[in-house]
Amino acid sequence: MLDRTDPEGAVAEAAAAYSNWGRWGADDVLGTVNFITPDERRAAAELVNLGVSFSLSQSFDMNGPQKGWRRRTNPVHTMLDTGVDAARGTQGFPHGIGGADDVVSMPLQCSTQWDGLGHIFDHGRAWNGRDAAEVVTSAGDRITGIEHLAAPVAGRGVLLDVGRALGEDGELPDGFAVTAEHLEATARGQGVAVGRGDIVCVRTGQLTRARRQGWGDYAGGPAPGLSFTAAGWLHSTEIAAIATDTWGFEVRPNEFDDAFQPLHQVAIPHIGLLIGEMWDLDALAAHCAADGVHEFFLTAAPIPFTGAVGSPVNPVAVK
Amino acid sequence: MLDRTDPEGAVAEAAAAYSNWGRWGADDVLGTVNFITPDERRAAAELVNLGVSFSLSQSFDMNGPQKGWRRRTNPVHTMLDTGVDAARGTQGFPHGIGGADDVVSMPLQCSTQWDGLGHIFDHGRAWNGRDAAEVVTSAGDRITGIEHLAAPVAGRGVLLDVGRALGEDGELPDGFAVTAEHLEATARGQGVAVGRGDIVCVRTGQLTRARRQGWGDYAGGPAPGLSFTAAGWLHSTEIAAIATDTWGFEVRPNEFDDAFQPLHQVAIPHIGLLIGEMWDLDALAAHCAADGVHEFFLTAAPIPFTGAVGSPVNPVAVK
Amino acid sequence: MLDRTDPEGAVAEAAAAYSNWGRWGADDVLGTVNFITPDERRAAAELVNLGVSFSLSQSFDMNGPQKGWRRRTNPVHTMLDTGVDAARGTQGFPHGIGGADDVVSMPLQCSTQWDGLGHIFDHGRAWNGRDAAEVVTSAGDRITGIEHLAAPVAGRGVLLDVGRALGEDGELPDGFAVTAEHLEATARGQGVAVGRGDIVCVRTGQLTRARRQGWGDYAGGPAPGLSFTAAGWLHSTEIAAIATDTWGFEVRPNEFDDAFQPLHQVAIPHIGLLIGEMWDLDALAAHCAADGVHEFFLTAAPIPFTGAVGSPVNPVAVK
Amino acid sequence: MLDRTDPEGAVAEAAAAYSNWGRWGADDVLGTVNFITPDERRAAAELVNLGVSFSLSQSFDMNGPQKGWRRRTNPVHTMLDTGVDAARGTQGFPHGIGGADDVVSMPLQCSTQWDGLGHIFDHGRAWNGRDAAEVVTSAGDRITGIEHLAAPVAGRGVLLDVGRALGEDGELPDGFAVTAEHLEATARGQGVAVGRGDIVCVRTGQLTRARRQGWGDYAGGPAPGLSFTAAGWLHSTEIAAIATDTWGFEVRPNEFDDAFQPLHQVAIPHIGLLIGEMWDLDALAAHCAADGVHEFFLTAAPIPFTGAVGSPVNPVAVK
Repeated sequence: MLDRTDPEGAVAEAAAAYSNWGRWGADDVLGTVNFITPDERRAAAELVNLGVSFSLSQSFDMNGPQKGWRRRTNPVHTMLDTGVDAARGTQGFPHGIGGADDVVSMPLQCSTQWDGLGHIFDHGRAWNGRDAAEVVTSAGDRITGIEHLAAPVAGRGVLLDVGRALGEDGELPDGFAVTAEHLEATARGQGVAVGRGDIVCVRTGQLTRARRQGWGDYAGGPAPGLSFTAAGWLHSTEIAAIATDTWGFEVRPNEFDDAFQPLHQVAIPHIGLLIGEMWDLDALAAHCAADGVHEFFLTAAPIPFTGAVGSPVNPVAVK
Repeated sequence: MLDRTDPEGAVAEAAAAYSNWGRWGADDVLGTVNFITPDERRAAAELVNLGVSFSLSQSFDMNGPQKGWRRRTNPVHTMLDTGVDAARGTQGFPHGIGGADDVVSMPLQCSTQWDGLGHIFDHGRAWNGRDAAEVVTSAGDRITGIEHLAAPVAGRGVLLDVGRALGEDGELPDGFAVTAEHLEATARGQGVAVGRGDIVCVRTGQLTRARRQGWGDYAGGPAPGLSFTAAGWLHSTEIAAIATDTWGFEVRPNEFDDAFQPLHQVAIPHIGLLIGEMWDLDALAAHCAADGVHEFFLTAAPIPFTGAVGSPVNPVAVK
Repeated sequence: MLDRTDPEGAVAEAAAAYSNWGRWGADDVLGTVNFITPDERRAAAELVNLGVSFSLSQSFDMNGPQKGWRRRTNPVHTMLDTGVDAARGTQGFPHGIGGADDVVSMPLQCSTQWDGLGHIFDHGRAWNGRDAAEVVTSAGDRITGIEHLAAPVAGRGVLLDVGRALGEDGELPDGFAVTAEHLEATARGQGVAVGRGDIVCVRTGQLTRARRQGWGDYAGGPAPGLSFTAAGWLHSTEIAAIATDTWGFEVRPNEFDDAFQPLHQVAIPHIGLLIGEMWDLDALAAHCAADGVHEFFLTAAPIPFTGAVGSPVNPVAVK
Repeated sequence: MLDRTDPEGAVAEAAAAYSNWGRWGADDVLGTVNFITPDERRAAAELVNLGVSFSLSQSFDMNGPQKGWRRRTNPVHTMLDTGVDAARGTQGFPHGIGGADDVVSMPLQCSTQWDGLGHIFDHGRAWNGRDAAEVVTSAGDRITGIEHLAAPVAGRGVLLDVGRALGEDGELPDGFAVTAEHLEATARGQGVAVGRGDIVCVRTGQLTRARRQGWGDYAGGPAPGLSFTAAGWLHSTEIAAIATDTWGFEVRPNEFDDAFQPLHQVAIPHIGLLIGEMWDLDALAAHCAADGVHEFFLTAAPIPFTGAVGSPVNPVAVK
């Protein structure tokens, strides 16, 4: 039972109970991604039976959910050259060739993303017990930058479609706290078991709703999401990563009177867990609901921005 | 035999000979990626035997090759918040949580990338015969934007390590034109056959050299690369995509007296070929050289920027 | 009397009546800024009696009015280094020096600005009758870029505080069309005469209201502003420039059934008029109301971005 | 006589001797700009005799001096819409209106600029003795941001053309340390006296040379500039601001064996001096050399980016 008045105590207790500090050595920069071993990855590839692939990424454009909060804008994409210019033949190239280039400015946290290990701290401590001030300076994350995850994030993906399992018309309402029991019941009902090294995709249906009704407060407002009480499950299952179709992974409002993303505070710096947000699980979920198969080979490789504390990602599931 | 004085004629001839316009219907937006069928993809997944994964992406940071040419900079990555701030406890969050966010500004063509179908035109014509001016305006590529490639680019990857096969110490010299014969000889020597739907990775060794000697003119200068004469091979093999470890895919200087990337002018608008550039094939190539296996499962999903004519990509090969 | 159903006809008529094409030669790149002669500028400097200066610029930050329309964001300002880093002494500099740098990404039209001569076209024609397609390509404005206005925009400024003169509590309501008669009456009432070469600052009070009530639809929504019928006044007065405290200079909704900024279409390409938008005239206006002096020396120098069609500007008035 | 081995000692000594901490109260955010009083500004306006104006700004574009050092790029300017699009009539606007917008990404320190008071620290201390960590966080300069200088920087400008006075063909060689004696001799020779509240423009001629020979190491390399020994002069003259035509204001290499911009370390946090860099003084200097008048009215208003530690500026001198 959570004491709504004491998030700090609850975080401290969970941090102590579920810490992975030192588990992979003092120099570790991967956290729970260490759970994806070559054996897990090889076994995951055997899940490919149909050869169909799904992108789990939202579109990156000005129609995204950001509203400026915390200086987060949607991606601003502009052209350096266009076909209109090329068709006029004034680009200065020989033999009739023409070209178009483009540029983007964006927060790395603006759309479908991975949170890197340097994204969240607990009382000035980063993953593996490091001093946050030593890890992430204005020069970026000098130790656990997202570039370290360039290669390994390919393995078994599991979809837990909690929206379909427990929601109405496939959608959980805002404020719905998804507990370990909900996750386990969903897994059982959907015929899949979560295991070591898995990349777990939790669909709440909120994105489906936002797509239908408009973004509203999708970016930062009320949302279904993981309960703080699921911290133990995140730890004991030894999953490699978890992602949701919501802005912030956790249930919002959080389950304390005055709190901001307390589960992050346990999951990233203490468990070393890789968290994905704003994933678009709808096409994949429809397919899984139809064929009853909720596991697949998943590659979710961040763009290796050196020193970044996160990255846009286009996760691709293959069944 | 190429007539060095007539690139325009050579392009026209190759365009006529190797055009795929209409092959997948008037509305096609995928080009040769259509060659990756579910069957091809399923078969490719069976190539995973070891479960080891390789990132084929360069690092995205200010130490990249760009020098400002065509307004192309290296990615500028800045922090919106840092661990240093968090450690001081002045971020305004409750219960000891702290966070770091980041932002990037960059050309989509600055590092490891896919060229979209809207990236190159021939005399004002884009892929499938469309009017370039209708396809790519200041609003971006309204028809063949890179977002259409969000899901399908996962299939069989084949490494042709031409640098190791034909170069000295594993590297081709700048200006070396890689012909169809070179590609075929390399494939034979490395025990692999290129086939329909493959994503072909051609290592020249230039990136290895740049890494040793400094970037120099890597971005736009002399380089080993595909010969214009390889256009027929690109077409007849029915490959889905091809990528090199060089800035511009083609041999530089080009094989005509006054020319700029004439093979692009055939390959993108006429063949509809997906081209990758600045891929880092070195770690994968070393592994392939060691175990003699040059095929693998490759996922190379662009970030789906709506209307973009290209995208950074972190291709992940799994053997 | 405007025919609300025929904006195109009204624009054509006004364009014919008020065109300055050719007035300063075929090569002109300054438009009405030509009216600011050294004599005008010298005389303007004599208006400085108190030595007090006023900035007429809004703040440039994420609290600005932009909402993403037309890919216009507020300025995103990030730090490359901070004092927090410096205080830790980890920046790598010798003898105790520390530093902070910063970066910005922004539309040039996001806040207090000048519209350059390449900002608006009439049926494909730019200022002085040029082909818009020859003037502004993806490479920017190759002929009338804002850099040409780097030096000359310093001269006599005149404040017409129409809000105070005609509004309630100093503010005109949204949709209020400011006519030539309103401008002249305001000038008379405020003891000032508009003349050749003047930079006219028209305060409607809308910014005051937005500051009090929140931005709402300030960027692009209903607003007080210049009536289309003022085109003749803009021409005959031979003013050098005009600026308002609103997003779009003109009254919104525009005075035609289906229209978008028709006065711009006359004023910029045909009159060659320099237009300022989103200026903050409140502090200056309060001072002018108090001392009854509505003229001053005004310097409003754009940042000379080569080829830009506009620029942020911090206009400084000295009385 | 400087002890080349002890920059830290020299800085400490100068800081103690020339500190203005507390001079304008504990809450001061303007530093030496306080020296520009209304009286000074009114008197400065009387210097306008000809009515001719000069921009002292370099062009802001990709042809600038930056090379990526400290993540500083040249400004990247892109178009959101173009005249080419407008001429095709496909922008979606009614009655034949067309438009062009643009966007820029840039470091605030990339070209002609003011260094804000939050730009440099001495052993973790910012202007007026404040803790640097309290002043400039990832959120920007929360106390002495450049926005505070939006209005006051208009006053008497004085050109000291040291290049013409002491250099060969008007240019000082790289490494030339400009001392107080050089400045005074130049002033005497050019018939001007530096006084309280002045904005002093020091031309070394290095920009002239860079324009002729190419940028080379202009951004950060060897340069003529102020000698560390001029610190006392900067303080005792009670000037409001000083600007040079070089990247870094100080002589480079600096006058100590292992040092980086030690004069900044005294001038900004201790004197509270406003420093300008990369100003283009050539056109103004040619005029001053011709007519012998080296004083003028100068407006140099930064763009008021909230919390910025510097700003691009287009200074306009009127004679």
